[in-house]
Amino acid sequence: MRAAVLHTDLTLTVEDRPVPDPAPGDVLIAVTAVGVCGSDVHYLRHGRIGDFVVEAPMILGHEAAGRIVAVGDGVPASRIGERVSIEPQRPSPSSAETLRGEYNLCPHMQFYATPPVDGALAEYVTIGAAFAHPIPDEVSDEAAALLEPLSVGIAAVRKAGIEPGGSVLISGAGPIGLMCAQVADAAGATRIVVTDLDAGRRAVADRFGATEAVEAGTDPGEGFDAYIDASGAASAVRAGLRAVRPGGRVVLVGMGADELALPVSLIQNRELWVTGVFRYANTWPNAIALAAAGRVELDAMVTSRFGLEQAEDALNADGAQGAIKAVVHPGVARIESDTHDRRH
Amino acid sequence: MRAAVLHTDLTLTVEDRPVPDPAPGDVLIAVTAVGVCGSDVHYLRHGRIGDFVVEAPMILGHEAAGRIVAVGDGVPASRIGERVSIEPQRPSPSSAETLRGEYNLCPHMQFYATPPVDGALAEYVTIGAAFAHPIPDEVSDEAAALLEPLSVGIAAVRKAGIEPGGSVLISGAGPIGLMCAQVADAAGATRIVVTDLDAGRRAVADRFGATEAVEAGTDPGEGFDAYIDASGAASAVRAGLRAVRPGGRVVLVGMGADELALPVSLIQNRELWVTGVFRYANTWPNAIALAAAGRVELDAMVTSRFGLEQAEDALNADGAQGAIKAVVHPGVARIESDTHDRRH
Amino acid sequence: MRAAVLHTDLTLTVEDRPVPDPAPGDVLIAVTAVGVCGSDVHYLRHGRIGDFVVEAPMILGHEAAGRIVAVGDGVPASRIGERVSIEPQRPSPSSAETLRGEYNLCPHMQFYATPPVDGALAEYVTIGAAFAHPIPDEVSDEAAALLEPLSVGIAAVRKAGIEPGGSVLISGAGPIGLMCAQVADAAGATRIVVTDLDAGRRAVADRFGATEAVEAGTDPGEGFDAYIDASGAASAVRAGLRAVRPGGRVVLVGMGADELALPVSLIQNRELWVTGVFRYANTWPNAIALAAAGRVELDAMVTSRFGLEQAEDALNADGAQGAIKAVVHPGVARIESDTHDRRH
Amino acid sequence: MRAAVLHTDLTLTVEDRPVPDPAPGDVLIAVTAVGVCGSDVHYLRHGRIGDFVVEAPMILGHEAAGRIVAVGDGVPASRIGERVSIEPQRPSPSSAETLRGEYNLCPHMQFYATPPVDGALAEYVTIGAAFAHPIPDEVSDEAAALLEPLSVGIAAVRKAGIEPGGSVLISGAGPIGLMCAQVADAAGATRIVVTDLDAGRRAVADRFGATEAVEAGTDPGEGFDAYIDASGAASAVRAGLRAVRPGGRVVLVGMGADELALPVSLIQNRELWVTGVFRYANTWPNAIALAAAGRVELDAMVTSRFGLEQAEDALNADGAQGAIKAVVHPGVARIESDTHDRRH
Repeated sequence: MRAAVLHTDLTLTVEDRPVPDPAPGDVLIAVTAVGVCGSDVHYLRHGRIGDFVVEAPMILGHEAAGRIVAVGDGVPASRIGERVSIEPQRPSPSSAETLRGEYNLCPHMQFYATPPVDGALAEYVTIGAAFAHPIPDEVSDEAAALLEPLSVGIAAVRKAGIEPGGSVLISGAGPIGLMCAQVADAAGATRIVVTDLDAGRRAVADRFGATEAVEAGTDPGEGFDAYIDASGAASAVRAGLRAVRPGGRVVLVGMGADELALPVSLIQNRELWVTGVFRYANTWPNAIALAAAGRVELDAMVTSRFGLEQAEDALNADGAQGAIKAVVHPGVARIESDTHDRRH
Repeated sequence: MRAAVLHTDLTLTVEDRPVPDPAPGDVLIAVTAVGVCGSDVHYLRHGRIGDFVVEAPMILGHEAAGRIVAVGDGVPASRIGERVSIEPQRPSPSSAETLRGEYNLCPHMQFYATPPVDGALAEYVTIGAAFAHPIPDEVSDEAAALLEPLSVGIAAVRKAGIEPGGSVLISGAGPIGLMCAQVADAAGATRIVVTDLDAGRRAVADRFGATEAVEAGTDPGEGFDAYIDASGAASAVRAGLRAVRPGGRVVLVGMGADELALPVSLIQNRELWVTGVFRYANTWPNAIALAAAGRVELDAMVTSRFGLEQAEDALNADGAQGAIKAVVHPGVARIESDTHDRRH
Repeated sequence: MRAAVLHTDLTLTVEDRPVPDPAPGDVLIAVTAVGVCGSDVHYLRHGRIGDFVVEAPMILGHEAAGRIVAVGDGVPASRIGERVSIEPQRPSPSSAETLRGEYNLCPHMQFYATPPVDGALAEYVTIGAAFAHPIPDEVSDEAAALLEPLSVGIAAVRKAGIEPGGSVLISGAGPIGLMCAQVADAAGATRIVVTDLDAGRRAVADRFGATEAVEAGTDPGEGFDAYIDASGAASAVRAGLRAVRPGGRVVLVGMGADELALPVSLIQNRELWVTGVFRYANTWPNAIALAAAGRVELDAMVTSRFGLEQAEDALNADGAQGAIKAVVHPGVARIESDTHDRRH
Repeated sequence: MRAAVLHTDLTLTVEDRPVPDPAPGDVLIAVTAVGVCGSDVHYLRHGRIGDFVVEAPMILGHEAAGRIVAVGDGVPASRIGERVSIEPQRPSPSSAETLRGEYNLCPHMQFYATPPVDGALAEYVTIGAAFAHPIPDEVSDEAAALLEPLSVGIAAVRKAGIEPGGSVLISGAGPIGLMCAQVADAAGATRIVVTDLDAGRRAVADRFGATEAVEAGTDPGEGFDAYIDASGAASAVRAGLRAVRPGGRVVLVGMGADELALPVSLIQNRELWVTGVFRYANTWPNAIALAAAGRVELDAMVTSRFGLEQAEDALNADGAQGAIKAVVHPGVARIESDTHDRRH
């Protein structure tokens, strides 16, 4: 099969790799769509994210959908043919974290495209059968791939404790910020203020859940039930904390500096709850339901499409004007530019 | 002033009463709209609900909106003129329940139209200033009155723990069941099955949040995250419990028999959480936000309108074909029949 | 190996069985102590519990401890020799319930001594490696076996939401009721009222956490933060519900009738939360810590000891005066009566 | 009456003040014991804490007990004579925070000895009747005063989510750290590691809940369910965060710098929940129960006693070797030194 491989010298090549065999309990999936995530781009440009370093060639990509084409021992053959969205993680079933339902925190996790684990920018991948989630016809292949970043939004909104009629401030109108805004909207928040430096991003935010989009650095107002950072910017986080009501929640999703000077006395005086999101657990059923019911808009987030041989172009598509999300179709070698109407 | 008074012999008369004086901390409100609730009707027909017995003449009505016309000591005069929705309860500020935020459970509660406390079917009422909630222009007087039953729906959905992409079964498509369905929809539930015996009620359920309306007694399916009873029917409750997934929630809102034979072994084997809703606490901010944002449909629930002198007709309007909610306008003596287009 | 087998004609025989092979991921354990549970006795006397029917010969026993003597594929050999307490369940790692941390509710559960799964009244058993919990020297073999009923107490007290300085009413002073009382005591409850019909049981309750023991049927007082039923008696449950404060919790642990007439209007008016306990999840780390720290008293609950060939006597030991818990030592054929001082 | 007044020039004088009149809803209390808190000392030495500045003469002291000697309108005269512990706060009954049970976060709070509100280092004080908590005979006057810092410990341990068999790391073995350790112990934590720079403080920690006391700066171990900071030291907070298991809690109680550089990526990767404690709400019932049951040790924390005229000495007693808590008895002018055996 063909696969987009990142090398330790930060070059990306599309090369031949053997089709993997599904281990017992796994399924083999022909990949139909892979979203490009900022973390893929970060590995390409910097070779590392925090303690995770690319020390050997690794296939990129972890936002993926496909069709089951084979099953490992113990998985019913009836699953062959299913269209699935891939939850790209392999936790140990027996860690304390997994057993208490926080499998995303499992210390033995193997996660797609996190060194040294290969990802999904390839024609075929394997995953545990329970992590290949069947999707209904209403959900396109591309939307199925985007259930992964949607899951980050679900995880963030859960932690933010949004309830119907509530309010949330979100900094960052990139794909993750917009996913958070969409889920907050689905959860009934009626005041969803999104901030971003980029006017183009602010211009589309109302299409993806925001009730208001304001320039980062401007006073966003106060009294929010929750603040979600999807920017990773220190100044945004500090302003966000000040905008939350007593007893409110702060959820840090964006990746920035390892350390941040935080207003501890404010956290104390208002008894804020500050936490972060690290991937997600138990989000796919909700993600599928939201997508199938049309409660979130995923297809419209795809702003460019590429074949597998164009993987490097896809990874560099984030700089284009109006870019939200690039999607690679691994079953296709090349897609002509300006072809934005492909659906499954 | 004029007021609709229920007597111990179960007659209802509209009679003169002195305009109340606002006590310190209270406001005086000229009532503009009062929704008729099943409990008002129940008092009229039976003279009691559970341990609450009508032992002296009592003004009915507790779903109310109006305009502040005077204030008691300690309340800023600037509040005069505000359009408000009335939260019809007066908890003691110092009970253990109130202090921990469950003021609806305060044992010293005085609640509109619950013996011996007078209600809102009158030209004027008083309430604590914090319980007269200002409403924006987008919310009509009638909708402002219906924030009260909406609050029951908010309280029920909170307890049901609905999250985006979740599912809920609701039995009963009367006003409360429909409010629950609307709030569940606002909370992002994507499978909202409402059951009712009455075909007419089922026919409108999809307009008020239901994704599916099925005849009571029919198998509603299973695996629901939560079940909300708004019927008070024993058979519905028993069927509802069986329809909930392991670890799910059951919220009993409808009033029926004092005792019910419940499938205790099922509650145990599935570790269901069963609870009830008794009024509401801290719901008005959310109710106002939902109504102002158009996330719930309240005006469309009003199916008949009456003047104060017609209060008895209003209380008996529940039998009409297609009736959902009757509203009395206490500032008006009589409203011609078939005049269904009045708004504030 | 020898094993105590219950037959469909409700006879119990101790017979030869092959020593099981540890499957991949499993460990093989030489059993050192097995507590006798009321459910074992119930199977012996009635051949069924609810829908679970003994339709083929089955080894009884599920409160067990032992020493690892062999490991299956994928389990480090270094575990051989460990003294362990056995969590007697095998959930599917991929059910929705397991993935969200409620593995006790997994529909694919295989549980010791629940038809058709064999239990631990045998010289050897196998279990998943993560469910064989290493115990420190401070915890005796018998105490290690009793971590199973202690886990029921932990699960019940968690659901009861007990906090330091809180109060709880517990009906039933059998082993489970006493475990609940001990955990409530460890959790800081300062008012722990235990009710039982039996004066002998009441007499020992204060040794195991109770601050007060009152005769079942007597008024236990009111205003409790929580009520835990460990009796399964309808009258106790009904009295217990009435004793709980508004907003309090009710946890049904005891098994009784499938259906119970419950005071639904009370559940509503006080917004009680009613739930049940079905086994346990994620309790062993806490159970081990409590036992090792001496925060619960387990050894003193053992009131009689038997060898494996005396299994039937052990199962019938519950009728003896002062009996709390019988323990079988499967590595021993017979233990002389009145030998109550054996420890590991 | 006599009262210990802090002036804006940071001098403390004991002077005559009029006995306050109890307002409607208030009680008048003859003060019997007042604990000296670090914040009193901080006001004396620096004239401010954060934004709270001493701009007019103010009576210090907020850890107080006494006896009700008069009642305001609306309070039953039967309360006169009650021994009470004072919860030194006056929230507005109608703020959103109070109504949802977080009255400690009420923006209209008036709190003893927080500028410009007078405190309890006086012969008489008034407080709302519901905030004068009756205490049983088992609780001494001094212990009743110390229910205030105990309440901080209760608030912290609640937020830390400690459960029986759990673990907690606490930095700081001053009065608040020891209160936290005692409540964690009452809550069933079996691993309570307390750190402090001071060997004398570490030496007494095991008497007040700690299972282990280690020198601040030493590696305290890892895998803690929660970390409570009662030191306000940046280095302690950073080490504490690293010691918490994935999904664990961090509660910041100690006051230090307004800003702190925190390891945000760690908070994210482990999905820690970080919050602070600002006073307390709904803690007195639990505090009284714990003290009355002997589950916490308060009297032994009192290491020096003073009369009201010696208030300045009391405020400076914190430097003495072995000092934990100084208590002033406002009904007494002077107490001879080395008189450590006074009880009510």
